[in-house]
Amino acid sequence: MANYTVSAKAIVSHPPKDSNRSWEMQEVKLREPNADELLVRMIATGICHTDLHFGILPTDYGNYPKVLGHEGAGYVEKAGSNVKGMAPGDPVLLSFASCTSCRACQLSKPGYCQNFMSLNIGAVRGIFEDISGNFFGQSSFSSMAIVGASSVVNVSGLLKDENDLKLFAPLGCGFQTGAGAVTELANANKDDLVAVFGLGGVGLLAIIAAKTRGCSTIIGVDRFASRLDLAKKLGATHTIDTLGFTNLSEDLAKAVKENTKGSGTSINIDTTGNLNIIRAGLSSLANSGQLIIIGIPPPGSELGVNLNELLQSGKSIRGCIEGNAVPSKYIPQMIQWYREGKLPINELVKLYPAQKFDQAASDMDSGVTVKPVLIW
Amino acid sequence: MANYTVSAKAIVSHPPKDSNRSWEMQEVKLREPNADELLVRMIATGICHTDLHFGILPTDYGNYPKVLGHEGAGYVEKAGSNVKGMAPGDPVLLSFASCTSCRACQLSKPGYCQNFMSLNIGAVRGIFEDISGNFFGQSSFSSMAIVGASSVVNVSGLLKDENDLKLFAPLGCGFQTGAGAVTELANANKDDLVAVFGLGGVGLLAIIAAKTRGCSTIIGVDRFASRLDLAKKLGATHTIDTLGFTNLSEDLAKAVKENTKGSGTSINIDTTGNLNIIRAGLSSLANSGQLIIIGIPPPGSELGVNLNELLQSGKSIRGCIEGNAVPSKYIPQMIQWYREGKLPINELVKLYPAQKFDQAASDMDSGVTVKPVLIW
Repeated sequence: MANYTVSAKAIVSHPPKDSNRSWEMQEVKLREPNADELLVRMIATGICHTDLHFGILPTDYGNYPKVLGHEGAGYVEKAGSNVKGMAPGDPVLLSFASCTSCRACQLSKPGYCQNFMSLNIGAVRGIFEDISGNFFGQSSFSSMAIVGASSVVNVSGLLKDENDLKLFAPLGCGFQTGAGAVTELANANKDDLVAVFGLGGVGLLAIIAAKTRGCSTIIGVDRFASRLDLAKKLGATHTIDTLGFTNLSEDLAKAVKENTKGSGTSINIDTTGNLNIIRAGLSSLANSGQLIIIGIPPPGSELGVNLNELLQSGKSIRGCIEGNAVPSKYIPQMIQWYREGKLPINELVKLYPAQKFDQAASDMDSGVTVKPVLIW
Repeated sequence: MANYTVSAKAIVSHPPKDSNRSWEMQEVKLREPNADELLVRMIATGICHTDLHFGILPTDYGNYPKVLGHEGAGYVEKAGSNVKGMAPGDPVLLSFASCTSCRACQLSKPGYCQNFMSLNIGAVRGIFEDISGNFFGQSSFSSMAIVGASSVVNVSGLLKDENDLKLFAPLGCGFQTGAGAVTELANANKDDLVAVFGLGGVGLLAIIAAKTRGCSTIIGVDRFASRLDLAKKLGATHTIDTLGFTNLSEDLAKAVKENTKGSGTSINIDTTGNLNIIRAGLSSLANSGQLIIIGIPPPGSELGVNLNELLQSGKSIRGCIEGNAVPSKYIPQMIQWYREGKLPINELVKLYPAQKFDQAASDMDSGVTVKPVLIW
């Protein structure tokens, strides 16, 4: 029987009411960290669409009540006896969890850990009193969190001041996912013609990363003019507004081709999960191009692939989790790019006091804010 | 009006009779090479399954009569005025044709040339008198051939004697296709667990290349015991005999998993084009693994891809033409590997006098010979 000795304030997700989010800020209790965990005092937590998705699941599947949040940033309060290289007071950024022992983890592919789903999506009782937790090994929608060591990246020596923790909170999930798809999986270079479908935080980071790699053509695709403008500011050389398209798949493929002088793209990145857009992403590739799937399609979505066409064209279709990145290496890399002016994430982040979580989530839903970050 | 001044003997494909191949050795006439072409005196030509396929197409689609052959090896007899770096007497190996000017060609991806199909598969009149030619830019089932410069690799200085031309003839297509998939597209290393589906010349070269790269597990899959034995001799650490499988797709996937201690493979290479095998190839991959499609599936074959599964697993499905290789670089590389004992292609090649083409093709059909090579 655990002893719940740590007090905190947390955003607790309850079963939806009339299909609306039912999140509340509550006083909660947590147990002490075990040998492989840390207790982290949170400074900031980014909100990701994955939080919104899991925070409104039907009651039967929701494991309610629960604490979400997986873009945490804060200071180590306590470190378990097995935790190496982390001490109380160290600033940390939180990322996803991995088992560290399966074949994928041993080969430095933690995003493809064979226990990824259970470690990141499985809700666990016994960390918070009477509330589920351990979301992405952190459940960082809480002023204090018990975090598995695999989710923690020590950023001591990499920060100028505490404001950096607020700005960098989303590096561990959304930003890494978008940038890593371009640099770690596609390994884009100046000869690449890139299209990014969907310009949320993930998609815009893909745009920024493509610019960092010097890609000659960078096409941003969305149905909101404000996002298209932002993409241009961040490095898109072309934009496609899908709002007026009558046949989304065909019209979009045609527009991509037109923006590449007919050749098609070498890298297409889908962050939408929309099957029609994914189809356009496949058909608008040039020979030997790759379509990278990041957005979560509706359950059961099936893409029919013409194998002869795939073979003759030498195209690839690739799933990509967390940008193929190793957070302990990639987060410091992204911080370095930010320092060099190559990763202007300040253009995307808007800070909200944690108690304004409802406004922050609504602003993300509506698209007013690209990346809301809650300040504890 | 061309002047057909060059005499040769060629294997001419005529419309099939009762669905049987109808090939004949005939005296033929060719025109002189133009400025971008060479006249090559053939020493040897490998037979590839692609020749067998195109040599028995229905009459309406066959462009009969025609000269096939696309694994030629010989000596330059004449070089057109625009042809650089080739002189009469130079030994050459022939490969596929590319336009050299499209975006893919400019980026050193000639296998994905946007004119690949027309340049390699399109039958052309006017090279041979009254017979179609230009197959893969060469139509090398002929004692003399007009060859486009893009198909020619000069191997001066790389041969010990003329016998090498006979052994190396298949490097330009089948052998390059199998080895290149492993080294040029998958870029396999010692951590990779590889399965190769179908152990013809292409598949066996993939086995050999996987061994050259030190892959820790190499699984050969076929339904002929003799091929499985040969795969073991050439480097396979495990073999799977599909002959007794009742549910090919499920049984095969299960067997691959069993041979990798449950983890699944990181690279699967299909050379069969069989949709059930391709399905097993996708499902038996470990997370972040890649399925490489080399074998030609029946026209219209569609693979249904569960996008959520693809995303979560980080798997890739990739088409691969001619091993992703640049022949002018890769053929010398393969010759080097052969010299170092790493590419024992002598185990696969069997020489036949050109007039025994019918026996050679039959032996390939039946599986008696992996790679027949005709000697002119």
